[in-house]
Order: sequence, then C-alpha cells, then structure tokens
Amino acid sequence: MALVVQKYGGSSVAEASRIKRVAQRIVATKKAGNDVVVIVSAMGDTTDELLELAQQVTPLPPGRELDMLLTAGERISMALLAMAIANLGHEARSFTGSQAGVITDSTHGKARIIDVTPGRIQEALQVGQIAIVAGFQGVSQDTKDITTLGRGGSDTTAVALAAALDADVCEIYTDVDGIFTADPRIVPAARQIPRISYDEAMEMAACGAKILHLRCVEYARRFGLPIHVRSSFSSREGTWVVSDPNNEGIEMEQPIISGVAHDRSEAKITVVGVPDKVGEAAAIFRTLADVEINIDMIVQNISAAATGRTDISFTLPSADGTVAVTALKRIQEEIGFEKLLFDDQIGKVSLVGAGMRSHPGVTAKFFGALADAGVNIEMISTSEIRISVIVGQDEVDSAVTAAHRAFDLDVDQVEAVIYGGTGR
Amino acid sequence: MALVVQKYGGSSVAEASRIKRVAQRIVATKKAGNDVVVIVSAMGDTTDELLELAQQVTPLPPGRELDMLLTAGERISMALLAMAIANLGHEARSFTGSQAGVITDSTHGKARIIDVTPGRIQEALQVGQIAIVAGFQGVSQDTKDITTLGRGGSDTTAVALAAALDADVCEIYTDVDGIFTADPRIVPAARQIPRISYDEAMEMAACGAKILHLRCVEYARRFGLPIHVRSSFSSREGTWVVSDPNNEGIEMEQPIISGVAHDRSEAKITVVGVPDKVGEAAAIFRTLADVEINIDMIVQNISAAATGRTDISFTLPSADGTVAVTALKRIQEEIGFEKLLFDDQIGKVSLVGAGMRSHPGVTAKFFGALADAGVNIEMISTSEIRISVIVGQDEVDSAVTAAHRAFDLDVDQVEAVIYGGTGR
Repeated sequence: MALVVQKYGGSSVAEASRIKRVAQRIVATKKAGNDVVVIVSAMGDTTDELLELAQQVTPLPPGRELDMLLTAGERISMALLAMAIANLGHEARSFTGSQAGVITDSTHGKARIIDVTPGRIQEALQVGQIAIVAGFQGVSQDTKDITTLGRGGSDTTAVALAAALDADVCEIYTDVDGIFTADPRIVPAARQIPRISYDEAMEMAACGAKILHLRCVEYARRFGLPIHVRSSFSSREGTWVVSDPNNEGIEMEQPIISGVAHDRSEAKITVVGVPDKVGEAAAIFRTLADVEINIDMIVQNISAAATGRTDISFTLPSADGTVAVTALKRIQEEIGFEKLLFDDQIGKVSLVGAGMRSHPGVTAKFFGALADAGVNIEMISTSEIRISVIVGQDEVDSAVTAAHRAFDLDVDQVEAVIYGGTGR
Repeated sequence: MALVVQKYGGSSVAEASRIKRVAQRIVATKKAGNDVVVIVSAMGDTTDELLELAQQVTPLPPGRELDMLLTAGERISMALLAMAIANLGHEARSFTGSQAGVITDSTHGKARIIDVTPGRIQEALQVGQIAIVAGFQGVSQDTKDITTLGRGGSDTTAVALAAALDADVCEIYTDVDGIFTADPRIVPAARQIPRISYDEAMEMAACGAKILHLRCVEYARRFGLPIHVRSSFSSREGTWVVSDPNNEGIEMEQPIISGVAHDRSEAKITVVGVPDKVGEAAAIFRTLADVEINIDMIVQNISAAATGRTDISFTLPSADGTVAVTALKRIQEEIGFEKLLFDDQIGKVSLVGAGMRSHPGVTAKFFGALADAGVNIEMISTSEIRISVIVGQDEVDSAVTAAHRAFDLDVDQVEAVIYGGTGR
C-alpha cells in the first residue's frame, strides 16, 4: 500500500461539478489500495474575489487580516471536496493548514514553512479516512496567527506534507498533461516530457514555465520526493520530476535539451554612464535590495577607456519597474550616473537541459538558430544547465519556435524511444 | 473604562460600505474610552450561498464538513471588519471561535457552548486592540473539530463571551430600534420597549418575536448580563434586557402587558379518535421525540364517554409536518387512533407581560378583544407571564391589532412617563 499525496489547483475545483469529478479520482486512488492525502486550492476565482472585497474596504489591508480573509477560500473548497467524497461512500476529513500541522514563520502573505507536524493527518489515515488539507496556509509558530505561503503556496504545502508523511509520491494536478518542451500555444509541435530532473524543473520554473513553482521543486529535491505532474482531466501519465530521470536501466536517447521556457513578465533597466569605480555597482544593487526587488539577469559593458564610464543593464519583474526607477533616481547624484533607460517590451527565452553539461556547442547552435530566425539578442545569461537570452517581446514566439526545432524537440522529429519509459 | 461587547448581524455587514460604517461605530465606542470586543456574523446571504454550494455537491453533507464550510462566512466578514478598523487608524485583531476560546460539545450544526476561555481576547484588550470574533462557531472539546452553534448562534457567542469577559454590557445590533410591543408591520402604532425583563424577553422570543433568540437571553439571565438591543443604523437607545426593569428608583407606570408576539411558522396536527387508555398519549409523543420534533402546544379534549375515545391536538414547526405525519402513521394500528388532521394555516398570538402575575382578568380581556374582532380561538396555552392562542393564519393580524389596542399599548394611548427611563 502506497501513500499518495495529491494536489488539485483552483481550476480543478472551480465549480461543484468539477469538485465531484475530483472526488471520483480521489476515491479511485483510495480503492486502488492507497492511503490518500489531498491538498486543495481555493475554488477558481475565489482568491481574487476576496482580494477585491478587501480593496473595497481598505487600500492597505494589514497582512494578518488579509491572510485570515484569504484562507476562507481553501476552507470552502476543502469542505465541499470532503462532502463530495462522503457522497461516494468514503470517509473524508478536511483540515486547515493549522490542523494539519503546517507551522510557519510570521511573515504574513509569504510565510515560510519551518515545521510540519501532521499528527491529525496520520490519525485520519490510520482509521482509513481520506485527509483533505487546505493548501497555501499555515499557522505561525510564535503568534499562533493564520499565515499564507504566497505564490505557489498550495504546491509547497503538498510537497512539504508529502515529505513529512514520507509519501511515495506527490501528484500535482493541473489542466495540462504535464511539463512540455515548450508552451504548446506557441509551439504546436511541443511534446510532453515524461521524466525530468529536479534541477531542470527548477530552471524551467525559474525561467517562466508556469506548471511547477520553483519553491515546491526545491523542497521536493531536498527530500528526494518524486513529483508527478499530471492532468486532472485525463488519466494519462504526466511528467515525473525525480533526482535522476535515467536511473531505471532503460536505455533511452537522452535529449540534450529538455525544454524551451519563456517569460514575458520582466523588464530591463539600463543605468547609463556609471563611473567605473569600485563599489558603484554594489551601491546600485544594494539600493534595489533595500526596496525588496529581485534582480534576474545583470550585464555590465566593458568600460569605455576614454570616458571611464560603463553601462549596467539588469532585468526585474515589470511590476517592480516604478519602484526600482524611483529608488535609483534618488541615488543618481550620489552615484553620478547619466540616465536610466526602462524597457518593458522584452522577453526571456531559455534553453534548459542537463545534457548541455556534456555537449559543447549548444550555445553556438542556439544563437545560430536565433540568427537564422532574424532574432536579435539583447542580453545573455547562463548556468550549468541553462542558457537564457533577452529578446524583443514581439520576437519571443519566433525565438522559442526556432530553438525548439533546432534542438530536435518537435514531435515529428523525435524517436519513438523517447516515449519508451514506463513513467515510474 | 467599561468593557463593551457588540454583536453585528449579517445585514449590518452585508457589503463593504456597511462594514466601513460598522467600523466607525466600533471606533467611536473605543474612542469613548471603552474596551471593545465585537462579534460578527457572516455577510448578508453568504451562509445561504455556502449551503447552496453544499447542496450542489451532495444532498446529505456530513455535519463536520458543513460546519467547516459555513464557518468560512464569518472568517471573511471578521477579517474585512478588522481591516476597515485598521483603515481608521485603530488596531484590530480578528479571532475565530476556536482562537477566542469558544469550547463546545461535538454536536455539529447545533453545538452547545460548554466553556469559554478567552485568553487571546484578553491579551488583545490589554495591549489596546479591538478584538473581532467570529460568531456562530466554536471548537469541540473532544475532537478539536470546528463546530457551529445553530440558529441564533452569533447572539449566543456574544452573550457567552461577554459573560466570560465579565463585560459591562452586551450590545446586540440589528436593523430595528429594539424590541417592540408588536410587529410594526402589523401594528403601525407599536412602540419600542425601553426596558424588559429576561423572562419577558424569553417568552417573546419563544413566541415568534425575531429580534433576540431564546438561547441567548437564557444565557444572559444566568449570568445577569445586561443586553442592549439597538439599531446599527442609528445612535438611539434601544431596548435593555435586564433582570428587573424597574429597579432604578424611577417611578414608572408599569404596563400589564409588555408586548404582543406572533408566529406563523407553526402547524397543527390533530390525532382523532385516540382510545382513552393510559399511555396512549405518551406513545404518541415518544414517537415524535424519536424523530426529533419539538412540540409546542398540546390540547387533549375531554373523552367522550359514549365512545371511550378522545382527540389530541398539538402544534409543531410547519417544516417538520411531513416527518411527524409519517412517523405517526407508522404507529396508527398499534395505537388504534382513527385518523390524522394536518393544518398549517394557523398562527399563534401571544400576550407577554410580567404584570399579568398581579392582574387578574387579563385572559378575559384578551379573549373579549379577540371576540370583538371576530377572531375564533382554536387552542390556548398559558404560562405565568404569557397567554398564547392559536387562530386562523389570516386572522393573525386582526388578533395582534385588537390585543395591542385592548391593553393600551398603542403609541397614542401611552402616557409620556413610559419614555421617562434613562435607558440604563
């Protein structure tokens, strides 16, 4: 008998009929002889509706009360799901994050899990019940106040509980069949990836792939917990995220590149004419850190000898653009830079693949494909298993399509053996 | 400095603008130098909407999960109210029933409060915060599951917390100015009652007056806690419910009758031709108790000597009619009664007044007034401070109007001294 943790997102439980379908899937898993723990998000647009209500009351809701408000969303969906399971003749019990033992720090709105003590979940499983747990929420260790985990919180709840319960697998249900080699809306020939490593999945998440959140994959990697990303609308195998996708003795042709991710949510700021002195760059990025802005890529031009000045470009979430520009203008005189350029018409395209460690020439092939497609590269950054470029936002689609084809990822180019894995 | 507990019902917080207005009232109470604890119901129709969602999922939701679902309603309203107070520059903290220490038994849907341990509320008050508490909910002592208190639950939360905190007053806010001598929609000359005893308020509640729930008044009487029923739409004094409304040395002409209550929600069942043997009536009412039906009035005719048979009539909530009739039909043969009559076109009209203890002739005057108005009396029941009659449903208005006038309750008949009290 296995212990299966399943997580269903908001769209999977957006209305009563969908909740009933999810209940059937849960009961089927239980009937197959598994213990089942289910993590559920708020129904559909509930969270947005609650945020809208809060905005009607005050433009600046206190974090503690906003968390209290938002956690009503999962409370509704988890109770309804438990009822739907009861209606199928199986016993289910719903638990809040606090009841499930999700202990966090006190940072309202983006609390971090510091401990998981799932005693009540274990008791429920021992008497044969299906446990339904509210995602996204916990209780602070110090103040006993209700907290929320922020973006991707429900996935993180699922992985953290699965790890604490020593589950055999954490299934993340979504509205697509798993992780794809590229966004199928851009590349119709994109294919679903049967198995991928934690490292690759983290790079994909960090580069804009929306299926799995970085934080949840990080957590799973730390505990060596297999994640199975699959569709709540079909029973097909999805994508397995594991430590070593090729450790099962099955000979398969490993692709060099696992996938092409893209992200249109960033903007680029260029600080023009920075005096080329020690500490100037540090001052710029300390200023940005002080206003809590996460920088992604950074490029510094070689200093022009004639002027003793350089340009520094970096990318950041577009939404933080105004705050960043305001903060930098405040230190313009002190630093002595000439001006700021702001461009939110950019996009990031990233190649991710553990295979590139052992395959030189990936960069050349990638850049060649982009050149052939007439795409101009504005910035470059690389990690051991990733190459990212910044391009014009209207060139993102061409860049993704060109890279996907260049690395033989299109469905019609792939050998059948790629699909040969048994899943797990 | 006084400790004031305020309770706001669902219509007082039905939308963001009303929540903001309630917040202003709370802040005004705080600014006047009081410690303030607020109990709040779910917004407007939220509870009905959640029940509708549950019905879409299953016709028979388990009680534990229904309670989990419904308690999301107060969670939303209390967080929004705390935000609205914060927006006015005052510190507020919202607390669930569980966090506020409302400990109940495990009877989901109609749990009884068995203890109140408001440590977190007291801590909040000590540091100058306004405490906002979810009404209607608690946590079971045995299972630590979330429970709801059933009808009138928020009023009961308010009175129970006020008693545990040794509050100076429990203010129940509603959409009218207090308790009236009759329903102003029927008797335009009805007037607001400035002060009323617990006993009278309980009889009024039991007889269909909808302002205060019986259970909440019972609780307040046990602890000698003054209740002030008032409108959330005005700052006028409302109705004070106290142990002795006349104990302040103010000479006032005490009316014999405090008010006329009515109730159209009952039905009457007559069991015709019951053999007049020992134990037959007991068997009938045990059968009804077994299916959890609350009987109100009972009348048994004198047995007709010729037949050795009698008729037994009783009233019960109309909604329970089908269940009662079905249960009685099952024992028809065993008991040997002839037939059942069911009538839901009835209404109950009740005179309530502590003064009737010392005023003989109230019954005669009441019945005379009804006779003059052409109203036929079907059943009668009395207590020390109440006389109730069952009449045809279409005669309820005439009966209430006639009784109200007969006992000099109409506004234009009342001496000004009636209004002379200072409230408290």
